[in-house]
Amino acid sequence: MSKQMRNKILSAILVFAMIASVRLGLGMGVVRAEEESAPAMPKYIFFFIGDGMSHVQASAARVYKGNNTEGEVLAGELNFTSFPVNGIASTFDSTSFCPDSASTATAFSCGVKTHSGVIGLEVDKVTAPRNLSEILSQDLGYEIGIASTVTINHATPAAFYAHVASRNEYYDIAMQMADSGYNYFGGGTINKPTGADKDQQDAYEILVEKGYTVTNDPAEIMALDADADMVYAYTDCPQDGGALPYSLDAQEGQLTLSDYVTAGINVMGNPENGFFFMVESGKIDWACHANDAKATIYDTLELDNAIQVALDFAAEHPDETLIVVTGDHETGGMTIGQSYTGYDTAFDLLAYQKMSFVAFDALVAGMLEEDPELTFEEVMPVITENFGLVTPVDASTAPDERLVLSKYEYKKLLDAFETSLMTPEEQTNNEENYILYGGYNPLSVTLTHILNNKSGIGWTSYSHTGTPVAVHAYGAGSEYFGGSYDNTDIYTAFLEAVGLAVNE
Amino acid sequence: MSKQMRNKILSAILVFAMIASVRLGLGMGVVRAEEESAPAMPKYIFFFIGDGMSHVQASAARVYKGNNTEGEVLAGELNFTSFPVNGIASTFDSTSFCPDSASTATAFSCGVKTHSGVIGLEVDKVTAPRNLSEILSQDLGYEIGIASTVTINHATPAAFYAHVASRNEYYDIAMQMADSGYNYFGGGTINKPTGADKDQQDAYEILVEKGYTVTNDPAEIMALDADADMVYAYTDCPQDGGALPYSLDAQEGQLTLSDYVTAGINVMGNPENGFFFMVESGKIDWACHANDAKATIYDTLELDNAIQVALDFAAEHPDETLIVVTGDHETGGMTIGQSYTGYDTAFDLLAYQKMSFVAFDALVAGMLEEDPELTFEEVMPVITENFGLVTPVDASTAPDERLVLSKYEYKKLLDAFETSLMTPEEQTNNEENYILYGGYNPLSVTLTHILNNKSGIGWTSYSHTGTPVAVHAYGAGSEYFGGSYDNTDIYTAFLEAVGLAVNE
Repeated sequence: MSKQMRNKILSAILVFAMIASVRLGLGMGVVRAEEESAPAMPKYIFFFIGDGMSHVQASAARVYKGNNTEGEVLAGELNFTSFPVNGIASTFDSTSFCPDSASTATAFSCGVKTHSGVIGLEVDKVTAPRNLSEILSQDLGYEIGIASTVTINHATPAAFYAHVASRNEYYDIAMQMADSGYNYFGGGTINKPTGADKDQQDAYEILVEKGYTVTNDPAEIMALDADADMVYAYTDCPQDGGALPYSLDAQEGQLTLSDYVTAGINVMGNPENGFFFMVESGKIDWACHANDAKATIYDTLELDNAIQVALDFAAEHPDETLIVVTGDHETGGMTIGQSYTGYDTAFDLLAYQKMSFVAFDALVAGMLEEDPELTFEEVMPVITENFGLVTPVDASTAPDERLVLSKYEYKKLLDAFETSLMTPEEQTNNEENYILYGGYNPLSVTLTHILNNKSGIGWTSYSHTGTPVAVHAYGAGSEYFGGSYDNTDIYTAFLEAVGLAVNE
Repeated sequence: MSKQMRNKILSAILVFAMIASVRLGLGMGVVRAEEESAPAMPKYIFFFIGDGMSHVQASAARVYKGNNTEGEVLAGELNFTSFPVNGIASTFDSTSFCPDSASTATAFSCGVKTHSGVIGLEVDKVTAPRNLSEILSQDLGYEIGIASTVTINHATPAAFYAHVASRNEYYDIAMQMADSGYNYFGGGTINKPTGADKDQQDAYEILVEKGYTVTNDPAEIMALDADADMVYAYTDCPQDGGALPYSLDAQEGQLTLSDYVTAGINVMGNPENGFFFMVESGKIDWACHANDAKATIYDTLELDNAIQVALDFAAEHPDETLIVVTGDHETGGMTIGQSYTGYDTAFDLLAYQKMSFVAFDALVAGMLEEDPELTFEEVMPVITENFGLVTPVDASTAPDERLVLSKYEYKKLLDAFETSLMTPEEQTNNEENYILYGGYNPLSVTLTHILNNKSGIGWTSYSHTGTPVAVHAYGAGSEYFGGSYDNTDIYTAFLEAVGLAVNE
């Protein structure tokens, strides 16, 4: 038999097998020769969203993880950046090339383009397509879980259980959460639980009335099991209005995103049903808005820890678990490399940052409360302690000579401190100040800018940007997530993976 | 038969077919049910490299192409961003997380990590692995073509025919080009053709002696056919030291990258042999170094035109053509969105930029030659003509109100003009000037910065950055290019696609 002939026969077998497998909902693309059987339709679906996370954020976490020594060039590995299937998704919404989390999460959950700020509604702001949670629970009986590091009625989680014309309708969103009957909500608190005017019945109470187990007790949360039917498990943390703390600031005993994934699996682990579990790391975005690379990287690494929990579950449920990881948009215009450091990076310098910008702001605010006449000289030791930076005159005391401020940096920092003492109006009344500080505390944002730049990290924005995002997929049905497409196609791929027609 | 049983049988058939097909070098992942036969081994391989092009550069071209009207949010399509297979490749080299074109092209051509600046040699700077051109020509008899918009002995093209310890050994590289016997070289001139000290035999002469047809006549180049055996076709353009002009500055009748791809196909179109054709768009990188978005976008669009030529060829040679498109690294830290414009973009404003920064520098240099006492007031009309920008006092004459300079921008531009009149030493003797101008002409780089920022485009660097790059693949063997991997794995994927063992 000629090679050509053999090829033709094999091609025919292949095409037959592929058509048949597609009809039966079998997976294709990631079957490897060493596997004993082809992937089946996913019964357990994890959808991880790194809010504000595109290629650079993931890559920065790899560089940080791999290289903490000056001069060594070795990138670390993350779970998700090693997944076998890769896609690239454009993120534009109907309003902007730099979209927001409401419209992008709606693209994922409902498969439609809509305005920035709109959740679960089409571009007319009225039509409410069934979202993935509704389709998968109603048509396939899957249990539904939603976890986030930010408030549970924030835009991204909301798009998986609510339909509202504005992401700011927090109370309405919380009511739809209570009415959803979904099996598991975990992570941050409820924002504005008594409504914008604080005159509504408390949303926590309503959740209990609707049959939810509502708990913020870490031991109780980690002891949840499949006997628990409808659960809202949360951490009541003062940082950032009831979101989980930055991983960089996490205290011993506080639950992490990984813990909330574990708890969700425990609640939804009923082997009779499948589940769809959306897990958002929401403060990657917040840290990027503030241009705080260390906080960004730590939350990205914690997202990867949470993905490890899903991989452990997948190892116990091979051939029926799908894990998809993406970002909704990029935030901050983050880059590895920036003008002053050129081709050099020094991510090891980030080790000198001990806390997030939010925690540092709180620290300095406390000092100012004690002493309203606080001077820059008095703050400088606290800066050195928490960011490693020292003034030119104190160069000899620097923990690392690269941490000595140049004259240019010193002047920027001094200006920032002085601006931070002005009223918010004075701080933002000119164009240059906005570009320098973006409405953040001038001192902490300048500190992260300087330390980031010394480390070889740049930022262009305090907002979201328009770069596409990576889609990483693993397991049963992952083959539907390869290629270049629009973010609305991620919705379609999920439905294809479970064998549901797209025009449902 | 139960569904589970059917699945098991189908899985067995699939695994058999896949193992067999891999052994025979058949393609897998992108076979679609509507196709009549599975893709075969690629006989014709196009490898397009956008130097300095990552996700943002491609996406910026899509935004520019789709949206030239303020307020409309509609991304255009490019050929390569619609390819069915997508990969993501890390670009780190052995020296830096922000690598250079020599080491990254070596990763592609030889499958090894090496130092920035090294071409075709391992990290010891001595060991010379066979590169893709050598393997494919020696083992499979493929013809080899190399085209670039920059000088033909520049780092990226050189990595496909030379092995040298430094990318600056231009004469040595040109000698290896002459000795290669490869079938087609097209695009820019030879840099330093008589050596660094101008004391060597002219490389053009040597190419002729070695049997090459050497021509810079456009009509002759476009009339080349398969009777031509060894060809070096080039454009002798004064801009940028013998590279092709920026697409933005191209004159009527000048050959484009697309033309050089057409000519290469004509030369290598002998149906008895296959070919491997590396095509580089090298000035995307140069425009990004200078933070000139319009020039970047135009060269990216012209790269896409050149890819269209390959797609036209693929349509005539279905099932035996592979097209792979990637970047070697990102340059400039380009972002869609930046601090001052926030969530807004206005790419339509780029229409007011009439020429590249290089062409504008030449224009102003000419004015200064005529009048060394040239004032900012005298230059301003030329700025308005070529970048659309007007001073605050002339606001009423602005072609678009968004083009009126703010006071802050006006001051930056005036400072830049004054700095541009200083000596090069004075221009670069302080940290702030480097961050502002990056060693470029302060006037033109400030003009592109201001127009880019008004358009919603940011930059963080004048160097390469460390973001991963997208890999887009189409046609026979494209399935080997999906997933997340290192840039050295692109070399491996090419060899797998043609059925060659990797440890050859």
